[in-house]
Formats: sequence, structure tokens, C-alpha cells
Amino acid sequence: MDKVFYISLIAPIFGIIGMLIVAYITWRISKEAPGTQRMQEIAGYIQEGARAFLKRQYITIIYFIVILSILIIFFTKWPELNFLSAFSFIFGAFLSLLAAYIGMNVAVKANVRTANAARKSPSKALTIAFKGGAVMGISVVSLSLIGISILYYLYSFIFHSFEDLEKTLNVLEYIVGFGFGASLAALFAQLGGGIYTKAADIGADLVGKVEAKIPEDDPRNPAVIADQVGDNVGDCAGRGADLFESFSDNIICAMILGILFAKLSKFAFIFPLVTQAIGIIATIAGVFLVRGYKKLSPIMSVNIGFFTTGIICAIGFYFASITLLGKIEIFYAALSGLIASLLVGIVTQYYTGSGMRPVKKIAESSQRGVAINIIFGLAYGLQSAFFPVIIIAAVIAFSYYITGGRLQGLYGIAAATLGILSTTGIIMSSDTFGPISDNADGIAEMSGMKKEVGKSLETLDAVGNTTKALTKSYAMTCAGLSAVVIFVTYLRITGILDIDSNILPIINVANPKILVGLFIGGALPFLFSALAIGATGTTAFQMVDEVRRQFREIKGILEGKAKPDYARCVDIATKNALKKMVLPSFIAIIFPIAIGLTFGKESLGALLLGQTLSVIVLAPFFINVGGAWDNAKKYIEAGNFGGEGTESHAAAVEGDTVGDPLKDVAGPSLHIFTKLINMTALLFAPIIIKFTLFP
Amino acid sequence: MDKVFYISLIAPIFGIIGMLIVAYITWRISKEAPGTQRMQEIAGYIQEGARAFLKRQYITIIYFIVILSILIIFFTKWPELNFLSAFSFIFGAFLSLLAAYIGMNVAVKANVRTANAARKSPSKALTIAFKGGAVMGISVVSLSLIGISILYYLYSFIFHSFEDLEKTLNVLEYIVGFGFGASLAALFAQLGGGIYTKAADIGADLVGKVEAKIPEDDPRNPAVIADQVGDNVGDCAGRGADLFESFSDNIICAMILGILFAKLSKFAFIFPLVTQAIGIIATIAGVFLVRGYKKLSPIMSVNIGFFTTGIICAIGFYFASITLLGKIEIFYAALSGLIASLLVGIVTQYYTGSGMRPVKKIAESSQRGVAINIIFGLAYGLQSAFFPVIIIAAVIAFSYYITGGRLQGLYGIAAATLGILSTTGIIMSSDTFGPISDNADGIAEMSGMKKEVGKSLETLDAVGNTTKALTKSYAMTCAGLSAVVIFVTYLRITGILDIDSNILPIINVANPKILVGLFIGGALPFLFSALAIGATGTTAFQMVDEVRRQFREIKGILEGKAKPDYARCVDIATKNALKKMVLPSFIAIIFPIAIGLTFGKESLGALLLGQTLSVIVLAPFFINVGGAWDNAKKYIEAGNFGGEGTESHAAAVEGDTVGDPLKDVAGPSLHIFTKLINMTALLFAPIIIKFTLFP
Repeated sequence: MDKVFYISLIAPIFGIIGMLIVAYITWRISKEAPGTQRMQEIAGYIQEGARAFLKRQYITIIYFIVILSILIIFFTKWPELNFLSAFSFIFGAFLSLLAAYIGMNVAVKANVRTANAARKSPSKALTIAFKGGAVMGISVVSLSLIGISILYYLYSFIFHSFEDLEKTLNVLEYIVGFGFGASLAALFAQLGGGIYTKAADIGADLVGKVEAKIPEDDPRNPAVIADQVGDNVGDCAGRGADLFESFSDNIICAMILGILFAKLSKFAFIFPLVTQAIGIIATIAGVFLVRGYKKLSPIMSVNIGFFTTGIICAIGFYFASITLLGKIEIFYAALSGLIASLLVGIVTQYYTGSGMRPVKKIAESSQRGVAINIIFGLAYGLQSAFFPVIIIAAVIAFSYYITGGRLQGLYGIAAATLGILSTTGIIMSSDTFGPISDNADGIAEMSGMKKEVGKSLETLDAVGNTTKALTKSYAMTCAGLSAVVIFVTYLRITGILDIDSNILPIINVANPKILVGLFIGGALPFLFSALAIGATGTTAFQMVDEVRRQFREIKGILEGKAKPDYARCVDIATKNALKKMVLPSFIAIIFPIAIGLTFGKESLGALLLGQTLSVIVLAPFFINVGGAWDNAKKYIEAGNFGGEGTESHAAAVEGDTVGDPLKDVAGPSLHIFTKLINMTALLFAPIIIKFTLFP
Repeated sequence: MDKVFYISLIAPIFGIIGMLIVAYITWRISKEAPGTQRMQEIAGYIQEGARAFLKRQYITIIYFIVILSILIIFFTKWPELNFLSAFSFIFGAFLSLLAAYIGMNVAVKANVRTANAARKSPSKALTIAFKGGAVMGISVVSLSLIGISILYYLYSFIFHSFEDLEKTLNVLEYIVGFGFGASLAALFAQLGGGIYTKAADIGADLVGKVEAKIPEDDPRNPAVIADQVGDNVGDCAGRGADLFESFSDNIICAMILGILFAKLSKFAFIFPLVTQAIGIIATIAGVFLVRGYKKLSPIMSVNIGFFTTGIICAIGFYFASITLLGKIEIFYAALSGLIASLLVGIVTQYYTGSGMRPVKKIAESSQRGVAINIIFGLAYGLQSAFFPVIIIAAVIAFSYYITGGRLQGLYGIAAATLGILSTTGIIMSSDTFGPISDNADGIAEMSGMKKEVGKSLETLDAVGNTTKALTKSYAMTCAGLSAVVIFVTYLRITGILDIDSNILPIINVANPKILVGLFIGGALPFLFSALAIGATGTTAFQMVDEVRRQFREIKGILEGKAKPDYARCVDIATKNALKKMVLPSFIAIIFPIAIGLTFGKESLGALLLGQTLSVIVLAPFFINVGGAWDNAKKYIEAGNFGGEGTESHAAAVEGDTVGDPLKDVAGPSLHIFTKLINMTALLFAPIIIKFTLFP
């Protein structure tokens, strides 16, 4: 056992500390008072619906895991030990789902307790909601590091490879399956959850708010419980699985690249583990600083958490870069990643922020009807997609050149990605804080506590919307950079990249065969988004019919005399979401394998780039256009351009509805889609190399 | 003078024959009776508005031509003879605008004569409308061939290069400016015309049809003349300039590639001229076969024209491939191009056709409100973008492999593009036939002749919609393939492609520097589309306000007692269109030069590919989603799902309106945008090579 081994231990140890903190927070939240009978009843519906959905969703996913495990055993690289890849795969999927489950489980407890706390102390409500979110945040990063560490030690033990870098590379290649499992589970979770939540949301809004003119979260609305459940299974569990895979994929790939750059330092491959372990501690410190300060607004409290985490991470990177790698430039690269995600956040803020020109313009255009609202939204949305790409391109160029270009520069790009990655915990915490506050507000409304809690929960909800937007910018930047990192890893695994030569590997797009891969890759995200949006549309279509039917057939429902049939709406959302999450996920697996087998590894490499390119423009477009429509609606609701109840407001609600499947289903899923394609390519590369049709 | 010279003469000779036919048709149409006083009055408004717009538009364009000419003289390759490039540039822009002017000028005469003929003989109306369109169709291809030939002979004479392939390559490089000029003029024409026509259309529809509930083309609508003018300056002049540039760019690039493949045959570089000259004759034959046959429906007549032209072109390719090149495989490649544009047409037909599932589904979803209509439209539109890319990729792969791969295969791809190109004349004819029929129907409506002409003009209008959809599919396929052809030409001009080595040139996207070019390139079409859609939205916004104002302030307008102020609407459309066409066009010139100067020729090459990739998915998405919404509206108007006047219909009209700027401004402009970027790169490549910042 050498120094590398001992230093690497920091990852599982900090991971375990993280999980202990999670247990502690969970225990503290459980002890808070859950409010009145009525509040508990409503929270009970939500918990029940969410858990029931997750259970059925997980069962569906298990089928696929079994089938794919068999595929992995028979069709990946190492005939004798393929079961290790399959084991990694199952383990990755399991931990991803576990993290999402733990996080959501606490979220559905924290929501009602936040609502209850708001009755007496708004500042305590903030503390509970953020801590509730932190369970998800800390679980995601801790379980990922624990999982990867376990596999690393286990396989290193099997191969006796602790001090042998060549063998360690082999070990890490077996761990790729972990990322594949995490990505697969995440795509299912995000897609299923997304379709669920948005179909329910649209059904509740279009019929309840627009047609029946009852307020948001009104208990007379049959789709209202499905809507609340959706917040948890989509925004909460779905996003948790998403960040788990993003985090895991990147660490694994960065470790593999670290082996390639062993010339730099023998610690290069554990550098990702060490820096992300520091990220856990930084996250814990940040989380405990977010509380209801007397003199500070909630958003300021959250910012204190962010900055604390960011600064600790930066310091960690600085020391790790110097002591482990002896190269300050790696620190600069990591820092550029952090700054980039901040800049993308500013762009997002400009294009979707409530006081900004685009949102105001969209709101104003609502006065000229739905169509003009949509046209303006599309124009701003498309525009907003341009700048994140420029920022991502700038980080790639900067981190590549600053670390010396050539092969070393590729490690620099990985470092930039690690820079962003290190704040995953706090980002995820504040993201989950969003649906918790949203739910708390809904529970207060439905249980008639609205007057008692006043504006405090709405304020938290607004803060939650800002942090959710931040997470999305974070995810965009991360997806763009990590695609490059995984791409380079792919080049290594396929042998296109030759480490010893210090010459850049070649994917020549001037070759028509490779160009074909690039073009088809670029078209895939369009097909995927089409299916995701279509699935949400179809489900929403049924939901609209069902809510209309209940209003028509159940007498006294609008007077509050009869209870709506919440379960029917929950059922429609559940069934459709589970059915329709399958086909889009398949695309991510089938196409890379098919193109690889037909045209070979270089074409597949080009396919990876083509789809990355489409994703890094399409995803911000979808996410920002949806956010802008949402806030344009809110801007009108705040009393501008006529305010609620006017034609302008009706037009803005339609715009917001169009944005729902774009910003909460297609957009976030695309970020997982791109990584799942990449991981599929990584995992099945060996078989592709062997059996290419037109090599 | 050798054989090459004599054979090449076929191009200008057939071009001149084409222009004689154009003169003959124009004379024949002028002789037809222009109808009643009222009809002539209305037609007069349209002619006046259209000519006034074109005049002002051309003046604006001239400024840019002057500025760019200076740039070309100082900043392109050949210090001593740069003025030749500048001359080519001016000549290209001039001929492009001339072709569009001739075509539109006859179109605005043919429309009223078509309407008048329809009063007595529907079959004669078809003949006039199609012949009117043929003026545009034949002018575009004839003037292009004449222009390129003139430059070729002139420069060959200056350089004494008739029998020297090396020098001829030099000559052709001076002709690149011709394509650049054509592309620049086309982008302005299409963008300006597109913004004009769609803003007027939206204003007329939203306020007239939806709010005031008066029929389409009603003379009480203040925006109705602007709408009719728009059909001419956008659909007619804009599209004419578009196909002129597409045709010219491809011929020039294919000739340059022909020089590279002189090993194949010394006729390889005049092969494009010869085959396209045959295309003129084929078009003339096709055009004269389209007439009102007694026993055939109008669409069948048009089909007869198409097939005749297609078959003559195919035969021409067969003989040219064998006699000039001695290589039957080139014929196969050309044929694959023709078939591909047919297949893309089928995909378009499926996703936008009236009886098809997507359109029916979108129509059905209108019953659940605007938002669901839009969501379904987006889902199908995104889906539809996937398949054209697959088809284009298949043609690239097929034409590359069938002609022997490697460098020869690149010429094969050029041949596939020439295959599609050869039908440009008839495609353009039937495309211009669209706005003529549309205008004729409008004139009949406005002059109170509607009952007299019955359904005959509506039938022609419907045929026009089909042929317009066909043109768009044709343009899509053409844009995808020609981007590859121009890309290869770029590789040659920059020296990345080494002819003698018979090794494929290298653009290595695994190099982060080059990756940056790819990513930024991919983001450009999003920025461009955003500006184009935004410009249309802003103009439409003003138009809506103006039409609302007139309805409010001019007493008796809706009772038909007072005349609306048509000129105000025409003025709003004109001013905005001219102002807002500039910035998006700039992007196509600034970015390639900036990236090239910063990161070098390979990065610029990657940028070209990145933007191509985005365009070949974005453009079909925009075009098909707009077409589908349009036909979903028509499907409801035909009496389905409640028919006109219902909520469903109102929702469908909004959907159609959203589609307008996508399908008629952003979509078609993207096809020119991509070529203008490519031509900019070609033209300024030499300066980029010399002064790269980070080579």
C-alpha cells in the first residue's frame, strides 16, 4: 500500500461522514411538528402518490437493468470478467435510485413541516426547507463517492493492482459500467418524472386556472395532488438521479484521464476523488450556514451558503493542484470552470429573469395574443442558446491552452469540469429546496392555512425558482464540458488516442464516413426531444380530458361540496409516464451501437460530438424559453399589462404551458441523454471495434 | 481552343435560348386580358407596392455591395488582381437581383391575368399561372449559367488559360466572388422579403380573421395589400434569389472540384456546366407540358412537367457521365441525389400533409387549447427534422462509396448535388406558381369576382401549396449536400486538401481548438434564427397595433363604407423589413472571418461543419412545423373538429401564426445563411491563412 492508497481513502471517509450528516438531518426533520390534521392528510396523499410512483417506476427500471446486464456480460470487452462490468452497472443504477429515494423521502416529510413552521417563524421554515433539500444534495455526492471507492478498492484487490497504473486503468474501465448504470437510471427517472409532473401541471393549469378560473393549488382541482406529487417525482427524484450520474460519469472519466497523465503525477488519477471529497465538506459547511438570519433576506442566506462552499472548494483545488500535481495551472483550469457556470447563470438570469428586458417584452407581447407571445418567446429562447455555447467554448480553449495544450491540455479540460462538479452538493441542495417550498406553499393553500402563513412561503417559492434556474445553468455548463471529457475518454478506450506519442488523436470530419456520424449524431437530440415533448403532450391531453370530465360529471365539485377523484389523475400520470419513458431512452442505446457497428469507431466518435453539439444548443433553448414564458406570466400576475384575469394573462398562461414540457422534460433530459449516449459508446466500444461492417 | 472549350459553349448557348423563351412567355402573358377595372386597380396596388419595396431593398443592398467590394479588393488572396474577385462579386449580386426582378415583375402581371382567365376557363388559368412562374424558373438557371460562363471566358482570356488546368483553377477561384455576391443578395432578399410578407400576413390574420372575424383577403382589412405584396417580394423574389445562389454556388464549387479530379477526365470541370445546361432544356420542355388538360387534375398536369424534366435530366446525366467522364458511377451518384430529394419530399408530405396523422393529431389537439396544439406541433416538427438528416447522410455515404471513396468519392458527392440541382428550373417555376395563384385568388376575392371564378383558383392555390412544400424539401436536401461540396472546396482552397497525395484531408475535431470552431458554428444558426424570428415578431407586433388602430379610428371601415389606409401597412412592413434584414446577414460574414483569424483554417473548417449540422436539422424543423400548423388549421376549416368559428379553429389559427415566421422567414433563410457563411470562408480564406492569431 502506497501513498496513493492512503490519500484516496479521503473519498469514502468523507462520503461516510456525509451520510452520517444526512442521517442526522433526517432525524432532526422528523422530529419537527407536522402541523394540523388537515395538513397531514394532504401531505399523506402526496407522500403516498410519490412513493407509489417511485415503486412502480423502479420496478420498470429493474427489467431493463436485467436485460442490459445480460447484454453487458456477453457483449463487452473482457470475456472472462464481464460480470464485473455488469456488477458495476447494477451497483451504479442502484445507488442512483437510492440517492433519489432518500432525498425524495425526506423532501415529502420536509414540505409539510416547512408549511407548519411558516405559521410561526418564516426563518425556521427556510431552515427546514433548505435542510430538507440538503439531504438530497449530500446523499448524491456522498453515495457516488462511496460507490466509486468501493468498486475501486474491490477491483484493485481482485487484480492486485494497487501500485500498478497499467492495471489500475483496467480496473477503472470496469468501473465505467457504474456510470452507465447511473445514467440509465437517471434518464428513466428524469423522463418518467418529468412527463408525470408536467402533464399533471398542464392539466391542472389549463382546465383549473384558465377554464374554471380557480386559483393555483386549489383543492377543488382534481389534478392538484398529481401536480404536487409530480414536483417530488420529477423535480426532486428526477433531478437527484440526474446529478448523481453527472457527478459519477465525470469522476470516472477524469480518473481514467488521470492515468493517462501519470507522467504529470502519480496522484493525477485520484485528484478527482480528493477534490470532490473536499466538495462534500464544503457542501456540509455551506448547508449549515443557510438558515433564517434575522437581518438577511432568504436569497441572501442561500447566497452565503453558495459562496462559502465555492470558496472552500477553490481553496481545496488550490492545495490539491499544488501538492498532488505540482501544477498551479490545473487550479486555474478548475477555477475557469467555476466561473463559466457563474457566467452561464448570468445569461440565464438575463433571458429568464423577471425584471429583465426579454421577459418584459414577452409579457408585453401577450397583449397582442398568444401567437405573438410564443413568437417572441421562441426568438429570445433561440438567442439565449447562443451565449452558453460561446462560454463553454471559451472554457475549453482556456483550460486547454493554460495547462499546456496537446494531451496535457485534455486533462486541463477535465479539471475545468471538476471545478464545476465540486459544488454539486450545494447546488443539488438548493435545487431540492425548490420543490419543498413549492409543496409547502401548496399544502398551506389546500389546508386553508394560507392566511396564517402569509407571504413567507411564496417568498421561499420564489427563491426556489431562482435556485432551480441556477441548477439548470450549472447542468448546462457541466453537460457541455463533461461531454468533451467523456469524448476524450472514449478516444482512449478505442485506441484512437495514443498516449505515448503525445500527438492529438484524430477524428477526421473531412472523411464523409465520419461526417455521416456527425450528422446523424446531431439529429438524435431532435428525435429524442420530439418523443419527450410528444409524450408529455399526449399525457397532458388525457389529463385535460379527465379534469374536464370530473368538473362536468361530479356534481358540486366546484362549490367545494364534493371531493374530486385525485387518484384517477395520479393514475393517468403514472401509467403514461412509465410507458412513455422507454422509447426515448432506447434511442440513446441503440443508435451509438448501430452506427459504431456499421461505420466504425471514428464515425461513432463523430456521432458523440454531433449529438453533444445539438444538446448544448437545444437544451439551453428549451430551458430558457420555458423559464422566460413562466416569468412573463408571473410578471403579468404581478399586475403589469393588465394583470390576472385579462386576455394578456390568458395568453401568457398558454405560453407558460407550452414551455412546461420544454423546460422541465426535454431540456433536463437532454443533459442525461447526451451522457447516456457517451457512456453507451464507452462501454460497448470494444465490441464495436471488433465487428465493424465498413471499417 | 480545344474540345473542352467547344463543349463548354453549350452552357451560354442554352442560357441564351432560355432567356429568349423567357422573353417570349413574358410577351404572351402581357397580351392576356387583365380583367375588370376593379381587378386592375387592385393588381395595380400590388404591383406598385412590390416594385417600390424591391427598389428600396435593392438600394439598401447596393450600399453593402460597395462596402464589401472594397473589403474584397483589399483583403482577399490575389493582391494584383483582386478587382476581378470584386467584379465577380458585383456581377453575381446583380444577376441574382435581376433574375428575381424579372421573375417577380412577370408574376405581378400574371396574377391578375390568372384571376381573369379563371372567370372563363380554369384550365387556361393554370396555364397562365404556371407560365408566369416559369419566367422566374428559367431566368434563374439561365442567368446563372450565362453569368458564370461570361466570367469563365473573360478570365480565361485574360490569363490565357484555356488549355491549362492549373491556370483554370486560378480563374475559377476568381469566380468564387460571383457565388458570394449571389448569396449575399439572396440572404437580404429572402430575409427582407420574408419579414415583410409574414409580418403583413400575421397582422392581417390576427386582427382581421380572429378579432374582427372577416374572411381572408377581405378588402376591408388594412393589411390585405401588404399581405399580397408580401407574397411577391417574399415568396417570389426572395425564393428566386435563393435558388439563384444555390445553383451558382454549387456549379462554381463543382467546377473547382472538377479541376481536382482532372485525372478522372479533363472534362470533369465542365461536367457541371453541361449537365445544368441540359437541365435548362429539360425545364423548358417540362414547362410547356404543364397546361390545363381536360381530363387531368391540375396537380397531375404539374406532375407531368416534373417527370418530363426529371427524365430528360437523368438521360442527360447518363450520357454526360459516360461520354465526358467515362464513369457510369457518377450517373448513379447523381441519381441518388434526385431520389433523395424525392424521399425528403415524402417525409415532408407525411409530416405536413393534410390527410396524414401528424396534421390530424395537431388539429385534434386544438380542441384542448392553443398550448396543446403548439406542444404537439413542436413534437412532430422536431421529429420530422430527424429523417431528412438520415436521408442526406445516406446519400453522402452512397455517392462517396459508389464512386470509389477517397478523393474521387468527394467528386461523387458533388455529382449527387448536381443531380438535385438539374431540376432547379422546374422546381422554381412551380414554386413561383404558388404566390401567383395565391395572389389571383386574393384579387378575385377583393374585386368581388369570387363567385364568378368559383373554386378553380382555390384548387390552384392548394396545388401551389403542395409545390411550395416540394421546393422546400428540395432546398433542404440541396443545402445539406451542397454544404459538403462547398466544404470540400474550402479544404482545397486552404490547402488542407492535398490533391496529389490521394489522402483525405484532415479536420481533427479531437483537437479542442477545432472543437471550439465546431461548437460556435453550431450555435450560429440559433442566433440567426432568433434574430429573424424576432424581427418578424416585432414587425407583426406593430402591424397588429396599426390594423387595430384603423379598425378603431376609421369609422365605417368594417361596414365597407370607408377605405382602409393600405399604404400605412405597406410602409410599416417595408421600413422594418429593410432595417431588420441587416444584422442577421452580418453574422454570416463576421463570425467566419473572426474565428478564422483567431484559431485558423481548421477551426474555421469545423465552424462550417458545425453550422451546417445545425442548419440541416433546424431548417426542416422550422419548415415542417409551420407547414403542419398551417394544414391543421386548414383541416379544421374543412369542417373537422368543429370547423371554422369554433374555439378549436381559433387555437389552430394561433398555431398557424406561430409557424409563419418559422416556415417562411427563419427556415428558408437558414438555407442561404449556411451558404453565405461557406462562401465567406471560401473568399476570405487566403487572408485568414496569412494572419491567424493562434495558429
